[in-house]
Amino acid sequence: MTQLTVTAVKGLPEIRPGDDLATLIRDAARAGRQDIREGDIVVIAQKIVSKSEGRIVHLSDVVPGERARAMAAEAGKDARQIEVVLSECAKIVRWERGILICETRHGFVCANAGVDRSNAGAPDTVVLLPVDPDASAKRLRDAFARSAGATVAVVVTDTFGRAWREGHTNIAIGIAGLPALKRYVGQRDPEGYELRVTEIAVADEIAGAAELVMGKLDRCPVAIVRGFTPDEPAETAQEYVRPAERDLFR
Amino acid sequence: MTQLTVTAVKGLPEIRPGDDLATLIRDAARAGRQDIREGDIVVIAQKIVSKSEGRIVHLSDVVPGERARAMAAEAGKDARQIEVVLSECAKIVRWERGILICETRHGFVCANAGVDRSNAGAPDTVVLLPVDPDASAKRLRDAFARSAGATVAVVVTDTFGRAWREGHTNIAIGIAGLPALKRYVGQRDPEGYELRVTEIAVADEIAGAAELVMGKLDRCPVAIVRGFTPDEPAETAQEYVRPAERDLFR
Repeated sequence: MTQLTVTAVKGLPEIRPGDDLATLIRDAARAGRQDIREGDIVVIAQKIVSKSEGRIVHLSDVVPGERARAMAAEAGKDARQIEVVLSECAKIVRWERGILICETRHGFVCANAGVDRSNAGAPDTVVLLPVDPDASAKRLRDAFARSAGATVAVVVTDTFGRAWREGHTNIAIGIAGLPALKRYVGQRDPEGYELRVTEIAVADEIAGAAELVMGKLDRCPVAIVRGFTPDEPAETAQEYVRPAERDLFR
Repeated sequence: MTQLTVTAVKGLPEIRPGDDLATLIRDAARAGRQDIREGDIVVIAQKIVSKSEGRIVHLSDVVPGERARAMAAEAGKDARQIEVVLSECAKIVRWERGILICETRHGFVCANAGVDRSNAGAPDTVVLLPVDPDASAKRLRDAFARSAGATVAVVVTDTFGRAWREGHTNIAIGIAGLPALKRYVGQRDPEGYELRVTEIAVADEIAGAAELVMGKLDRCPVAIVRGFTPDEPAETAQEYVRPAERDLFR
């Protein structure tokens, strides 16, 4: 029987720069009568990863430039926050009706380059995406090996919108110890036809499954996914980055 | 403890038009020592829903028109299949390098209007999306109430690509007994800031979670998701359809 379980890890404290996230997650899991086991996938919200890495900007420290001030005036937003977004943005994909869709330096396409003021833990503060979310995932994976004594996979997840469809979903921005894509390239159905779908974004689906137990308001930024046993080698979330020249929608 | 389980239902026969899908799924679940319980979400691949509804076209019955022949010549594809895609397509969103992104009559944006030749169950055959996948989900939900004696939710799922990111994920094209979106509109974080993300596409995330146990090659087109207890009222997958005028990427 193929079965996955997806379990919320509750009771984490507010995360501060320098916190040892793997140990805090292990302890919160234990307090909830769970353990982190060999083969588990630990899915962690980007926000707490960023906070532990000090990827926090106090808006009182930001002096907005001319462009940020003009955009803020047009959109009725905080110019200092737009200044931070622009500094995190490699390329503006769309700027319409106050919505700013950016390509980040990692190559992800998302609103406001992932800069977020909600759940920042302090007033007038924004949280940025990790500098290198795959490296964050790798560091956390190594830290779980030490603190929990188990070889796990780690997914750093954020909540992104999408084209064409209403609603956001959680996706993987950093991966360690897990393939990003399950590949069916060249495989054939019983009639001999090549499969239409050739690559499944499994780590994105794992991030989405984790979101279902995490929620946004009850300080539950971690879930453990158990029972997923890929047979492909590990990859990073950079596998998801579609080069602009191969993208029909940029 | 908030926990979901996602369990594959294996051993279904090849589905034919007119088959009683809910009874076949109940029997396959029982044979695998599972039962379908009150409150479960039964996630069912579009392909078998469509087959049971007779949404199958034999390409030998199709006479391609001039446009389909021209497009097929350009892309090196079967003109009869493109004729079927065009007949299912309300609007062509992109036609580039042999890739045809369509808006379906349901309002979904996907490759080839969801028309698929792989896993069709017979040679020279394509399977179309259900005419009304929400109605399909509702019928199946009612059928489970009779055949399994349980009130379940049903998600009809297909595997779609997305803009900007490599890899496909499963999403919900039909929903019954479940909300499409979890709404956080107007809710505030502990600092009083409005949440950045206001609508989570929970049924899409459920469909993606189910995909992780379903796979494409081992005749496992159904999964049971247990433990998700929404407090919002049920909706249809039409909640996901973003009107073209509100979409920055069409």
